[in-house]
Amino acid sequence: MTTRTADAHWSGSLSDGNGNISVESGAFDVPYSFDSRFGEGTPTAASNPEELLGAAHAGCFTMAVSHELAEAGHPPKDAHTTAKVHIKQTGGGFEIPKIDLVLNADVPGISEEEFQRIAQHAKENCPLSKVLAAAEITLDATLASA
Amino acid sequence: MTTRTADAHWSGSLSDGNGNISVESGAFDVPYSFDSRFGEGTPTAASNPEELLGAAHAGCFTMAVSHELAEAGHPPKDAHTTAKVHIKQTGGGFEIPKIDLVLNADVPGISEEEFQRIAQHAKENCPLSKVLAAAEITLDATLASA
Repeated sequence: MTTRTADAHWSGSLSDGNGNISVESGAFDVPYSFDSRFGEGTPTAASNPEELLGAAHAGCFTMAVSHELAEAGHPPKDAHTTAKVHIKQTGGGFEIPKIDLVLNADVPGISEEEFQRIAQHAKENCPLSKVLAAAEITLDATLASA
Repeated sequence: MTTRTADAHWSGSLSDGNGNISVESGAFDVPYSFDSRFGEGTPTAASNPEELLGAAHAGCFTMAVSHELAEAGHPPKDAHTTAKVHIKQTGGGFEIPKIDLVLNADVPGISEEEFQRIAQHAKENCPLSKVLAAAEITLDATLASA
Protein backbone atom coordinates (compact mmCIF):
# COMPACT_ATOMS: atom_id res chain seq x y z
CA MET A 1 0.00 0.00 0.00
CA THR A 2 1.36 3.39 -1.03
CA THR A 3 0.65 6.52 0.98
CA ARG A 4 0.61 10.04 -0.45
CA THR A 5 0.44 13.04 1.83
CA ALA A 6 -0.51 16.68 1.72
CA ASP A 7 -0.72 19.43 4.30
CA ALA A 8 -2.94 22.36 5.10
CA HIS A 9 -2.51 25.23 7.52
CA TRP A 10 -5.17 27.67 8.68
CA SER A 11 -5.08 30.61 11.11
CA GLY A 12 -8.13 32.39 12.44
CA SER A 13 -11.83 32.21 11.69
CA LEU A 14 -13.50 31.22 8.44
CA SER A 15 -14.09 34.66 6.98
CA ASP A 16 -11.09 36.48 8.41
CA GLY A 17 -8.56 33.69 8.44
CA ASN A 18 -6.35 32.30 5.73
CA GLY A 19 -4.20 29.31 5.03
CA ASN A 20 -2.11 27.36 2.60
CA ILE A 21 -2.12 23.89 1.10
CA SER A 22 0.95 21.95 0.00
CA VAL A 23 1.82 18.50 -1.32
CA GLU A 24 4.68 16.18 -0.46
CA SER A 25 6.05 16.11 -4.01
CA GLY A 26 6.76 19.81 -3.74
CA ALA A 27 4.74 20.40 -6.89
CA PHE A 28 2.91 23.30 -5.24
CA ASP A 29 2.28 25.24 -2.04
CA VAL A 30 -0.66 27.56 -2.58
CA PRO A 31 -2.70 29.94 -0.45
CA TYR A 32 -6.41 29.53 0.11
CA SER A 33 -9.09 31.58 1.79
CA PHE A 34 -12.83 31.95 2.22
CA ASP A 35 -12.88 34.13 -0.87
CA SER A 36 -10.86 31.74 -3.01
CA ARG A 37 -13.22 28.95 -2.00
CA PHE A 38 -16.66 30.52 -1.95
CA GLY A 39 -16.18 33.89 -3.64
CA GLU A 40 -17.59 34.60 -7.07
CA GLY A 41 -14.92 37.10 -8.05
CA THR A 42 -12.18 36.84 -10.60
CA PRO A 43 -9.85 33.85 -10.34
CA THR A 44 -6.70 34.37 -8.38
CA ALA A 45 -3.64 32.24 -7.80
CA ALA A 46 -5.26 31.05 -4.57
CA SER A 47 -6.79 27.59 -4.65
CA ASN A 48 -9.67 25.81 -2.94
CA PRO A 49 -10.51 22.23 -1.94
CA GLU A 50 -13.03 21.74 -4.73
CA GLU A 51 -10.66 22.53 -7.58
CA LEU A 52 -8.07 20.32 -5.89
CA LEU A 53 -10.62 17.51 -5.78
CA GLY A 54 -11.36 18.16 -9.46
CA ALA A 55 -7.63 18.01 -10.20
CA ALA A 56 -7.37 14.66 -8.42
CA HIS A 57 -10.40 13.23 -10.21
CA ALA A 58 -9.47 14.57 -13.67
CA GLY A 59 -5.94 13.24 -13.24
CA CYS A 60 -7.09 9.83 -12.08
CA PHE A 61 -9.78 9.37 -14.73
CA THR A 62 -7.58 10.60 -17.59
CA MET A 63 -4.80 8.18 -16.64
CA ALA A 64 -7.30 5.33 -16.26
CA VAL A 65 -9.05 5.86 -19.59
CA SER A 66 -5.69 6.23 -21.37
CA HIS A 67 -4.52 2.97 -19.83
CA GLU A 68 -7.66 1.12 -20.87
CA LEU A 69 -7.49 2.54 -24.40
CA ALA A 70 -3.84 1.48 -24.67
CA GLU A 71 -4.67 -1.99 -23.39
CA ALA A 72 -7.28 -2.24 -26.16
CA GLY A 73 -4.59 -1.37 -28.72
CA HIS A 74 -5.42 2.32 -29.01
CA PRO A 75 -3.17 4.56 -26.88
CA PRO A 76 -4.53 8.10 -27.11
CA LYS A 77 -2.56 10.79 -28.89
CA ASP A 78 -4.20 13.10 -26.38
CA ALA A 79 -6.87 12.66 -23.75
CA HIS A 80 -8.16 15.80 -22.04
CA THR A 81 -10.63 15.81 -19.17
CA THR A 82 -12.25 18.73 -17.42
CA ALA A 83 -13.71 17.91 -14.01
CA LYS A 84 -16.44 20.23 -12.77
CA VAL A 85 -17.00 19.91 -9.03
CA HIS A 86 -20.31 21.26 -7.76
CA ILE A 87 -20.64 22.50 -4.20
CA LYS A 88 -23.86 23.74 -2.68
CA GLN A 89 -25.01 25.07 0.65
CA THR A 90 -27.36 22.85 2.58
CA GLY A 91 -29.08 23.26 5.93
CA GLY A 92 -26.11 22.06 7.91
CA GLY A 93 -23.23 23.36 5.84
CA PHE A 94 -21.93 22.48 2.40
CA GLU A 95 -21.93 19.37 0.28
CA ILE A 96 -20.57 18.16 -3.06
CA PRO A 97 -23.50 16.48 -4.81
CA LYS A 98 -22.07 16.05 -8.30
CA ILE A 99 -18.92 15.95 -10.40
CA ASP A 100 -19.10 16.25 -14.18
CA LEU A 101 -16.27 14.76 -16.24
CA VAL A 102 -15.93 16.07 -19.80
CA LEU A 103 -13.51 14.00 -21.89
CA ASN A 104 -12.17 14.93 -25.32
CA ALA A 105 -9.80 12.38 -26.77
CA ASP A 106 -7.85 11.90 -29.96
CA VAL A 107 -7.61 8.12 -30.32
CA PRO A 108 -6.48 6.84 -33.69
CA GLY A 109 -8.27 3.81 -35.14
CA ILE A 110 -10.96 3.24 -32.49
CA SER A 111 -14.69 2.97 -33.14
CA GLU A 112 -17.12 5.32 -31.43
CA GLU A 113 -18.80 2.40 -29.71
CA GLU A 114 -15.59 0.94 -28.27
CA PHE A 115 -14.44 4.40 -27.20
CA GLN A 116 -17.67 5.09 -25.30
CA ARG A 117 -17.63 1.66 -23.67
CA ILE A 118 -14.04 2.09 -22.44
CA ALA A 119 -14.62 5.66 -21.27
CA GLN A 120 -17.66 4.59 -19.26
CA HIS A 121 -15.77 1.68 -17.72
CA ALA A 122 -12.91 3.96 -16.67
CA LYS A 123 -15.39 6.43 -15.17
CA GLU A 124 -16.94 3.70 -13.06
CA ASN A 125 -13.70 2.07 -11.97
CA CYS A 126 -10.96 4.64 -11.49
CA PRO A 127 -9.95 4.87 -7.80
CA LEU A 128 -11.21 8.45 -7.40
CA SER A 129 -14.64 7.62 -8.84
CA LYS A 130 -14.94 4.66 -6.50
CA VAL A 131 -13.95 6.53 -3.34
CA LEU A 132 -16.28 9.46 -4.13
CA ALA A 133 -19.25 7.22 -3.43
CA ALA A 134 -21.57 9.99 -2.24
CA ALA A 135 -21.34 12.07 -5.44
CA GLU A 136 -23.20 11.59 -8.69
CA ILE A 137 -20.55 11.39 -11.40
CA THR A 138 -21.47 12.17 -14.99
CA LEU A 139 -19.38 11.60 -18.12
CA ASP A 140 -19.58 13.37 -21.46
CA ALA A 141 -17.03 11.70 -23.76
CA THR A 142 -16.19 12.99 -27.24
CA LEU A 143 -13.96 11.19 -29.72
CA ALA A 144 -12.08 13.65 -31.92
CA SER A 145 -12.41 12.90 -35.60
CA ALA A 146 -9.07 11.93 -37.09
CA MET B 1 -24.36 26.13 -6.47
CA THR B 2 -20.73 26.97 -7.17
CA THR B 3 -18.67 24.98 -9.66
CA ARG B 4 -14.89 24.63 -9.53
CA THR B 5 -13.00 23.10 -12.41
CA ALA B 6 -9.67 21.46 -13.11
CA ASP B 7 -8.14 19.85 -16.17
CA ALA B 8 -5.92 16.90 -16.95
CA HIS B 9 -4.15 15.89 -20.14
CA TRP B 10 -2.57 12.54 -20.92
CA SER B 11 -0.79 11.19 -23.99
CA GLY B 12 0.10 7.56 -24.58
CA SER B 13 -0.14 4.45 -22.48
CA LEU B 14 0.05 4.15 -18.70
CA SER B 15 3.72 3.32 -18.31
CA ASP B 16 5.13 5.25 -21.28
CA GLY B 17 2.74 8.19 -21.35
CA ASN B 18 2.70 11.38 -19.39
CA GLY B 19 0.38 14.24 -18.63
CA ASN B 20 -0.30 17.37 -16.69
CA ILE B 21 -2.94 18.60 -14.26
CA SER B 22 -4.04 22.21 -13.84
CA VAL B 23 -6.66 24.18 -11.92
CA GLU B 24 -8.88 27.05 -13.00
CA SER B 25 -7.48 29.45 -10.41
CA GLY B 26 -4.10 29.23 -12.11
CA ALA B 27 -2.56 28.24 -8.78
CA PHE B 28 -0.66 25.40 -10.46
CA ASP B 29 -0.13 23.36 -13.62
CA VAL B 30 1.96 20.31 -12.78
CA PRO B 31 3.18 17.24 -14.62
CA TYR B 32 2.26 13.72 -13.59
CA SER B 33 3.27 10.27 -14.70
CA PHE B 34 3.11 6.61 -13.77
CA ASP B 35 6.30 7.05 -11.76
CA SER B 36 5.08 10.13 -9.90
CA ARG B 37 1.90 8.23 -9.00
CA PHE B 38 3.04 4.71 -8.23
CA GLY B 39 6.82 4.97 -8.01
CA GLU B 40 8.65 4.62 -4.73
CA GLY B 41 11.56 6.86 -5.65
CA THR B 42 12.51 10.25 -4.37
CA PRO B 43 9.87 12.97 -4.52
CA THR B 44 9.90 15.12 -7.60
CA ALA B 45 7.97 18.21 -8.59
CA ALA B 46 5.51 15.96 -10.42
CA SER B 47 2.23 15.32 -8.66
CA ASN B 48 -0.32 12.50 -8.50
CA PRO B 49 -4.07 12.19 -7.92
CA GLU B 50 -3.70 10.85 -4.39
CA GLU B 51 -1.68 13.79 -3.05
CA LEU B 52 -4.13 16.12 -4.80
CA LEU B 53 -6.99 14.35 -3.03
CA GLY B 54 -5.06 14.70 0.22
CA ALA B 55 -4.60 18.41 -0.49
CA ALA B 56 -8.35 18.81 -1.05
CA HIS B 57 -9.25 16.90 2.10
CA ALA B 58 -6.63 18.56 4.33
CA GLY B 59 -7.71 21.97 3.03
CA CYS B 60 -11.39 21.29 3.56
CA PHE B 61 -11.05 19.76 7.02
CA THR B 62 -8.65 22.43 8.30
CA MET B 63 -10.99 25.20 7.19
CA ALA B 64 -13.98 23.40 8.71
CA VAL B 65 -12.41 22.75 12.09
CA SER B 66 -11.09 26.32 12.26
CA HIS B 67 -14.57 27.62 11.51
CA GLU B 68 -16.17 25.46 14.19
CA LEU B 69 -13.51 26.44 16.74
CA ALA B 70 -14.07 30.13 15.94
CA GLU B 71 -17.84 29.72 16.23
CA ALA B 72 -17.26 28.25 19.71
CA GLY B 73 -15.26 31.34 20.64
CA HIS B 74 -11.81 29.86 20.03
CA PRO B 75 -10.35 30.79 16.62
CA PRO B 76 -7.11 28.82 16.21
CA LYS B 77 -3.79 30.61 16.16
CA ASP B 78 -2.74 27.80 13.85
CA ALA B 79 -4.38 24.59 12.73
CA HIS B 80 -2.25 22.18 10.73
CA THR B 81 -3.53 18.98 9.15
CA THR B 82 -1.63 16.29 7.31
CA ALA B 83 -3.80 14.04 5.16
CA LYS B 84 -2.37 10.61 4.36
CA VAL B 85 -4.12 8.98 1.43
CA HIS B 86 -3.64 5.23 1.14
CA ILE B 87 -3.87 3.53 -2.23
CA LYS B 88 -3.59 -0.21 -2.74
CA GLN B 89 -3.72 -2.61 -5.62
CA THR B 90 -6.70 -4.91 -5.72
CA GLY B 91 -7.73 -7.64 -8.11
CA GLY B 92 -9.30 -5.29 -10.57
CA GLY B 93 -7.06 -2.25 -10.27
CA PHE B 94 -6.48 0.24 -7.49
CA GLU B 95 -8.55 1.59 -4.65
CA ILE B 96 -8.31 4.17 -1.88
CA PRO B 97 -9.46 2.39 1.28
CA LYS B 98 -8.41 4.92 3.92
CA ILE B 99 -7.43 8.51 4.61
CA ASP B 100 -5.76 9.49 7.86
CA LEU B 101 -6.10 13.08 9.07
CA VAL B 102 -3.52 14.24 11.62
CA LEU B 103 -4.42 17.59 13.18
CA ASN B 104 -2.16 19.71 15.35
CA ALA B 105 -3.77 22.92 16.54
CA ASP B 106 -2.84 25.83 18.73
CA VAL B 107 -6.17 27.00 20.15
CA PRO B 108 -5.99 29.41 23.08
CA GLY B 109 -8.41 28.86 25.95
CA ILE B 110 -10.16 25.67 24.87
CA SER B 111 -10.49 22.50 26.91
CA GLU B 112 -9.17 19.20 25.59
CA GLU B 113 -12.66 17.74 25.65
CA GLU B 114 -14.27 20.56 23.66
CA PHE B 115 -11.37 20.52 21.18
CA GLN B 116 -11.73 16.79 20.55
CA ARG B 117 -15.51 17.04 20.19
CA ILE B 118 -15.25 19.88 17.65
CA ALA B 119 -12.46 18.18 15.70
CA GLN B 120 -14.46 14.97 15.45
CA HIS B 121 -17.56 16.87 14.32
CA ALA B 122 -15.59 18.67 11.60
CA LYS B 123 -14.10 15.38 10.45
CA GLU B 124 -17.56 13.86 10.07
CA ASN B 125 -19.17 16.86 8.42
CA CYS B 126 -16.74 18.66 6.15
CA PRO B 127 -17.82 18.37 2.49
CA LEU B 128 -14.80 16.29 1.47
CA SER B 129 -15.32 13.77 4.28
CA LYS B 130 -18.96 13.41 3.30
CA VAL B 131 -18.34 12.90 -0.42
CA LEU B 132 -15.54 10.37 0.23
CA ALA B 133 -18.13 7.90 1.45
CA ALA B 134 -16.22 4.77 0.40
CA ALA B 135 -13.09 5.55 2.44
CA GLU B 136 -12.48 4.97 6.11
CA ILE B 137 -11.41 8.32 7.54
CA THR B 138 -9.42 8.44 10.76
CA LEU B 139 -8.58 11.49 12.88
CA ASP B 140 -5.71 11.99 15.29
CA ALA B 141 -6.15 15.44 16.87
CA THR B 142 -3.58 17.04 19.16
CA LEU B 143 -4.10 20.29 21.05
CA ALA B 144 -0.86 22.18 21.49
CA SER B 145 -0.23 23.26 25.04
CA ALA B 146 -0.21 27.04 25.34
